[in-house]
Amino acid sequence: MAQIDRRKMLKLGTAGSLAALASTSAQHLMAEAPETARAAVPQWEVFEFALPGPASGNPFAEVQFSAAFTLGNRSVYVPGFYDGEGRYKIRFMPDAEGMWSYATASNSPALSGKTGAFACIAPLAGVHGPVCARGHHFAYADGTPFFPFGTTCYAWVHQPEELQKQTLETLRAAPFNKIRMCVFPKSYEYNHNEPALYPFARDAAGKSDFSRPNPAFFEHLEQRIAGLCALGIEADLILFHPYDRWGYATMPAEADDRYLRYVLARISAYRNIWWSLANEYDLMRAKTTQDFDRFFHIVEENDPSAHLRSVHYCNTMYDYGRPWVTHASLQNSEFESAAGWLQDWRKPICFDEVMYEGNLNRRWGNISAEEMTRKFWLGVMAGCYVTHGETLLDADGAFDENATPTLWWAHGGTLRGASPQRIGFLRKLVEDSAVASGSTRAGFEAQSPAYYLNASVPLRETKDTAQILYYFDVHQPIFYEFPLPEGRFSAELIDPWEMKITPLPGIFSGKTKLKLAGRPYQALRFRRVL
Amino acid sequence: MAQIDRRKMLKLGTAGSLAALASTSAQHLMAEAPETARAAVPQWEVFEFALPGPASGNPFAEVQFSAAFTLGNRSVYVPGFYDGEGRYKIRFMPDAEGMWSYATASNSPALSGKTGAFACIAPLAGVHGPVCARGHHFAYADGTPFFPFGTTCYAWVHQPEELQKQTLETLRAAPFNKIRMCVFPKSYEYNHNEPALYPFARDAAGKSDFSRPNPAFFEHLEQRIAGLCALGIEADLILFHPYDRWGYATMPAEADDRYLRYVLARISAYRNIWWSLANEYDLMRAKTTQDFDRFFHIVEENDPSAHLRSVHYCNTMYDYGRPWVTHASLQNSEFESAAGWLQDWRKPICFDEVMYEGNLNRRWGNISAEEMTRKFWLGVMAGCYVTHGETLLDADGAFDENATPTLWWAHGGTLRGASPQRIGFLRKLVEDSAVASGSTRAGFEAQSPAYYLNASVPLRETKDTAQILYYFDVHQPIFYEFPLPEGRFSAELIDPWEMKITPLPGIFSGKTKLKLAGRPYQALRFRRVL
Repeated sequence: MAQIDRRKMLKLGTAGSLAALASTSAQHLMAEAPETARAAVPQWEVFEFALPGPASGNPFAEVQFSAAFTLGNRSVYVPGFYDGEGRYKIRFMPDAEGMWSYATASNSPALSGKTGAFACIAPLAGVHGPVCARGHHFAYADGTPFFPFGTTCYAWVHQPEELQKQTLETLRAAPFNKIRMCVFPKSYEYNHNEPALYPFARDAAGKSDFSRPNPAFFEHLEQRIAGLCALGIEADLILFHPYDRWGYATMPAEADDRYLRYVLARISAYRNIWWSLANEYDLMRAKTTQDFDRFFHIVEENDPSAHLRSVHYCNTMYDYGRPWVTHASLQNSEFESAAGWLQDWRKPICFDEVMYEGNLNRRWGNISAEEMTRKFWLGVMAGCYVTHGETLLDADGAFDENATPTLWWAHGGTLRGASPQRIGFLRKLVEDSAVASGSTRAGFEAQSPAYYLNASVPLRETKDTAQILYYFDVHQPIFYEFPLPEGRFSAELIDPWEMKITPLPGIFSGKTKLKLAGRPYQALRFRRVL
Repeated sequence: MAQIDRRKMLKLGTAGSLAALASTSAQHLMAEAPETARAAVPQWEVFEFALPGPASGNPFAEVQFSAAFTLGNRSVYVPGFYDGEGRYKIRFMPDAEGMWSYATASNSPALSGKTGAFACIAPLAGVHGPVCARGHHFAYADGTPFFPFGTTCYAWVHQPEELQKQTLETLRAAPFNKIRMCVFPKSYEYNHNEPALYPFARDAAGKSDFSRPNPAFFEHLEQRIAGLCALGIEADLILFHPYDRWGYATMPAEADDRYLRYVLARISAYRNIWWSLANEYDLMRAKTTQDFDRFFHIVEENDPSAHLRSVHYCNTMYDYGRPWVTHASLQNSEFESAAGWLQDWRKPICFDEVMYEGNLNRRWGNISAEEMTRKFWLGVMAGCYVTHGETLLDADGAFDENATPTLWWAHGGTLRGASPQRIGFLRKLVEDSAVASGSTRAGFEAQSPAYYLNASVPLRETKDTAQILYYFDVHQPIFYEFPLPEGRFSAELIDPWEMKITPLPGIFSGKTKLKLAGRPYQALRFRRVL
């Protein structure tokens, strides 16, 4: 929880406290609202200030409020938001060290022309900034490679408080560094509970006023995002979804756009955010693809931190080649198509829904742990990334009609499956390979399907190749001739399920014939010997 | 061997022996060549006669010889062939009972205008005729369903005699009723031996004369085809292939066409023939798709028995929708595409190369027995058929550079894999279902991927559905709600690998929730209770 406290510490009561460091207008701001004093804001943390403003009418809809943050010749437009009770806020994640100044603008005189400044200092230890796309892969803003090994808990923030805490505890020990999660509560098979908080004001009859977001709802969501950030987990935040009984999936366009702007103003300053415009966008019958094109533009225009942007589909792919999409977020297991897609789209690919380890009565929710593990390997071998989910019913509960099972995929809680441990094993192999190569991408050359499976992607051997990883999938050769690149290599047999690494005696060069296990789902790693 | 002897018995020394049963010209024939006396030819057996003719020049190229076989108002054109040593033959498989008469035609007076007749009588016990396409499935000519469960021994007829005998013995006990095999010898990895016989005359330097087929070669091939017939096995005979060092893959068009006509004249009368125009036709760089179009037409025009016709590809599919193709012969495992292909092509689909159970150093030759078994189930569930192959190296032999392993896929011999037994188990399920429904197609409605996997093919339930078979593949639900069609059903859990059928207590109707194994690769069968 260290990081949550740190974030709170960085919040400023009303206006920028570093006015002493600012130019002319800072004096004015200090005079008007001199509250918390802060020496500096570390890079990629949240700088926030609040101002009092109009509380009558509908401030959400009627009051425009923003700030321009300036560093040298650079100016960043930062939308603000109404936080209820006459309180207006600006949040900003500085992405460069130096002396930032700011000035507010508003159609309300009370909120307009306020200025201030603060020093952005070096990032805290272990903080690398938001994740960005780098070619076909990802890296933090400081260049540190980021390899997404994600999981899925769509509605965990809408569960009882104790369960949410348990989810965070589970994630602390789990191998996942990204989580797909919804802003809106979810109404779906196995997901019927009402949320404790609603995203919009509701009348006594439960009718939502989409023009009035509920600040308490978003404050809670932000705490969860900050909790994930403290664990080093990226929040792949799903802005719309079709599993709905409250009307959030069928709001009018004007309400959609206002909701988006509100979320962006509140949440963009959290460095661990990825925007997922929707889960299964094509199942949202009230919306068109053009609506989602517009949503992408709203996100682009209103996110000062330019977080990753994608959208997830069910049957009909969004065109991931469009320039405003930073990476693909797929629902399929067509790993053999990945090479072509990478070439076409020239951006990273996350296979974000490949079915879940589980045993329930739906095809998307009952694959074995072995199959889930296999999909992670196939995804990595294809130069892509894969997302986990778990839908394991208790064997007895399945025939209890009154049972309300807690499923990780929807509710969070605990992980009971056998795949996470194996996914963690693979993640470590991938991360180790990056350390070995000092690269911003995995330091091994994936050899399947690229090479071993004879697919169209040529072997990307170079004399700098640090590691080569083969995965044999259903294939069970008892020997294979490996064409090694220039240099000398050690070799290890890897059993992805047993998580065993068995070094082979010897140092190898050139065309290398090796005896293999002769059973399926095995791997082999070569490491360059210096 | 009973059937081989029977076939020999039906051969006539020179001309038709049933002349006594024939009309006017029969008297002439009897007078000219009265040799063997035969009472009758059972339907779908081989009727053959030989005539002496010119032996000088190149009779293969220069002598035209054919016969017209007549039954009532129907006349069938039957090409004849030169069998060497001044001997010319006509072979014919009568497909209808009754009194057939025939008359020869030739550009050689010695072979022209010979006439005869014979009675075609009821088929021998257990003989159902050649296999034909019936909608998306296959049936023998008499309507008995035929479900291909094939295997692959490309070059078995080119191995030492003892090995060929062993292959036939293995097939006698194996679960396969179709075999893919080449006319030409094969030159490929693990296949380097010279054949005992060559298809064409060769000079001392080993140069072939493609205009002179070698009758001994074809006589031997025919014996093998007859041997398969005696075992009830269809010979899916591959007419061209690219694995060649003798020049058979690069003959000029004229030689190709003459070779085809020769094969057709000799072999069409064997009822267990399927024509596979090529293996991997698209790897035959010296030929174009148009060449294969022409080959199809030559086969159509010269095969009086109209056997099944297809062609097998490597990378580029032949257009199986063309009217002269009777069924698809695929090299892939895209079972999920089968529903669309069935709809487009409106003919049966054989997944004839889905990789082989094995452990050698090629991706096509090293899948596990479990994966091979799974592919058979997926194929059947998709309403299609799958072909087996085995490439199991001896674990020690793999590192012996001088070893020349005997691999079933190329050489025949014995089967050592674990999949054939499971394939036999599935074949029995499929054949039993046809018996249960009295149908010309499998009597179960396949439920995966069609229904269980939510694919686009609707559940084909009717009130006559005799059996419903579900296969869960990688899915492991602990329960599932099965929507049964009208009527009452018993249910059995099926373990395809353990080959165990476990009846569930009770009789089921309507929406039926059942507890399942909760592990992958399981199946379930419903059977209508009358």
